[in-house]
Amino acid sequence: MRAVDIIGKKRDGGVLTRDEISSFVAGVTDGSWPEYQASALLMAIVLRGMSPEETAWLTDAMVTSGIRVDLKKISGVKVDKHSTGGVGDKTSLILAPVVAACGLPVPMMSGRGLGHTGGTLDKLESIPGFCVRLSLDEMMRALEKVGCAMIGQTDRIAPADKTLYALRDVTATVESIPLISASIMSKKIAEGIDALVLDVKTGSGAFMKTESDSRRLAESLVSIGNASGVKTQALVTDMDAPLGRAVGNSNEVIECIEAMRGEAPSDLMEVTMALTATLLVLGKAAATVDDGRRMAQRAIDSGDALERFRRIIEVQGGDPHVVDEVSRLPSVDKRHVVKADRSGYLVRMDAGLVGRASVALGAGRDRVEDPVDPAVGILVNAKPGASVRAGDPLLEVAYRDEGRLARATELLTRAIVIGDAPPASRPLIVGEVR
Amino acid sequence: MRAVDIIGKKRDGGVLTRDEISSFVAGVTDGSWPEYQASALLMAIVLRGMSPEETAWLTDAMVTSGIRVDLKKISGVKVDKHSTGGVGDKTSLILAPVVAACGLPVPMMSGRGLGHTGGTLDKLESIPGFCVRLSLDEMMRALEKVGCAMIGQTDRIAPADKTLYALRDVTATVESIPLISASIMSKKIAEGIDALVLDVKTGSGAFMKTESDSRRLAESLVSIGNASGVKTQALVTDMDAPLGRAVGNSNEVIECIEAMRGEAPSDLMEVTMALTATLLVLGKAAATVDDGRRMAQRAIDSGDALERFRRIIEVQGGDPHVVDEVSRLPSVDKRHVVKADRSGYLVRMDAGLVGRASVALGAGRDRVEDPVDPAVGILVNAKPGASVRAGDPLLEVAYRDEGRLARATELLTRAIVIGDAPPASRPLIVGEVR
Repeated sequence: MRAVDIIGKKRDGGVLTRDEISSFVAGVTDGSWPEYQASALLMAIVLRGMSPEETAWLTDAMVTSGIRVDLKKISGVKVDKHSTGGVGDKTSLILAPVVAACGLPVPMMSGRGLGHTGGTLDKLESIPGFCVRLSLDEMMRALEKVGCAMIGQTDRIAPADKTLYALRDVTATVESIPLISASIMSKKIAEGIDALVLDVKTGSGAFMKTESDSRRLAESLVSIGNASGVKTQALVTDMDAPLGRAVGNSNEVIECIEAMRGEAPSDLMEVTMALTATLLVLGKAAATVDDGRRMAQRAIDSGDALERFRRIIEVQGGDPHVVDEVSRLPSVDKRHVVKADRSGYLVRMDAGLVGRASVALGAGRDRVEDPVDPAVGILVNAKPGASVRAGDPLLEVAYRDEGRLARATELLTRAIVIGDAPPASRPLIVGEVR
Repeated sequence: MRAVDIIGKKRDGGVLTRDEISSFVAGVTDGSWPEYQASALLMAIVLRGMSPEETAWLTDAMVTSGIRVDLKKISGVKVDKHSTGGVGDKTSLILAPVVAACGLPVPMMSGRGLGHTGGTLDKLESIPGFCVRLSLDEMMRALEKVGCAMIGQTDRIAPADKTLYALRDVTATVESIPLISASIMSKKIAEGIDALVLDVKTGSGAFMKTESDSRRLAESLVSIGNASGVKTQALVTDMDAPLGRAVGNSNEVIECIEAMRGEAPSDLMEVTMALTATLLVLGKAAATVDDGRRMAQRAIDSGDALERFRRIIEVQGGDPHVVDEVSRLPSVDKRHVVKADRSGYLVRMDAGLVGRASVALGAGRDRVEDPVDPAVGILVNAKPGASVRAGDPLLEVAYRDEGRLARATELLTRAIVIGDAPPASRPLIVGEVR
């Protein structure tokens, strides 16, 4: 089985066999496939596509490149949630404690922010002392103790994905539903979970800009998960405007703490509760989605969710007092307000541009190796559809550096569009794939 | 101009700018584009194509990666011929002396055989002492002395092509009309010639199997040549059966010597004379193709062509007596005859399989570094359309090694198809592109 023949087969639109795909993934992992052959095949996959079977085999080969975590020692249905990435997309920080409070173990493995999207790990690390680099043993102990662990991927999980992603990033082969699906699902399957809810974002602040692409990705992810024995369901949700008010790191943690006190923006709660209820049903903690919503609401109203979050922080080395005293989180004093330049209706608050402004401020990163400033960020005061008057403060920017502020405000000014008529309303939950 | 953005543009079907293409070719040549990015772009080009402008810019960038030979010191219209490769395709060895005898300087740079197709350099090197590795100065002296030089490409001609071809070979990105066009034409343009005739082969023994692909390649090549100031014309010619009788190296040289004595198979002479006459018109030595044919025929009938070949051999260090005494060329004693297994009409004599049999015997090579045996080869006694009787000797194999003979005869047996009715006749000259 020569690499050049496998590449040629895909170039001509052929369907690769399981063995051919395994040979590619193993070759990339052990270096026997040179990078120039791997990237040629990746480009052929981007342009020729992969069948559902090929995508499942690719995912499986990537899982097999590392360990599949054994969570049998932890009793109960182990669940996780994954988002394809958004702006102000902080639902995991609410969902995980709520679901754990409802009795399902949540071994959550997340990623860092890249480009205009934020990352759960960066947000958690804005809590002083919080450590996301737990070993698998430490994760097991956290799960036994508080029913939840929120950690980063270890090198032993799907190492082929790391190598392939680094190559895709520099060869313009990221945009491919089969490759994205295999990358996401190999890591989730290797975690050893039983059920998974996916939040597939759609819109300007999402990786997939159109609803049809997002739906295709959701279908691909769900079919791989279910075929691999992980009960998987996806919601396609809107990411044309930022979710909730806060975009950044410590400000997003604050918004989540407020949410668990019952004081959250309605869009954030709508998406979070839909994902949480779906996961509670998948994990058999609730019989119906409505039951799941009620359970989740009770966990919040009773204070159980916030208490669970406090204990998660404590077990992972963070300062648990931030839950009561959010001023313990890093902050900056300097504030800039972006005002409405005319009266009318807010037609757009472009999530992609707000996300890029957040990166410009230092709250996100363009390159994997860039540091993140936990204290800076943006508060969004108005969402599309709102009636605004000239001079209204639409955005509040917390910044550290004037030069960065200038770049951010330029992007934010472009993000805001005010018109004479309200825009067509967009549903927040666009679709469901099971 | 980031490599990843250039790759992404072509991935999405965009048209690259001249600067983007130059950056790619320069980057491949100086190593600043890593191979994994080059191969991703090559695959995107294979699958997305290139416009005529992009192909011309690519060709030009590849020319510019090396020197463009200055032939101004040589008076007259400098001409060359290039074939896309075939089996028994020996026309250059007749055309070059004939055209030189008709007064046009022929600085011919050729390649070696690879895969099932033979190479002019390998054939010439079967002449004892013949040296194809002349320096440019030596080539100039040969041109001044005998009006012709038949040499290999120097490293200074289009070095980007060498690097790119090596990468294409191992990444399944060879099959692309724009990439093939730029590879061929960059080397021809860099030679410094004024006019060029192309023999674009079509059929089982050709690189392009279908007439429409061959025509598209011919159109691409001709348009690049003319746009670069090289008067270029192409004939599309049949390569479904081997050309002439001999397939190998020294046996092909013998067939050419016989042809210049007026004793050649009609198919070989038809293609050779069409190419020669076309080139004589392009080089303004003849007013019309018919005039060109008459000139060429006179050069043969008068013995001028053969005499010119003798002097070319002499100037390049070879044994000129081979022209009078072909037994001085390397040969083997062992002969095997492949006979017709039934009576009927010869329907196929598959050029691709005969070419592979020639490689199996040792007359060609699968890898660039393989040696070639000048003495072994195949003589083809019958062409499609011939009426044959069971037991007729259809092929004569001159071999050195029994194991190689066994592999070759297996392929040759598959190459022969005998049926009850004659096949539809195929024209030898399929088309003309100017």
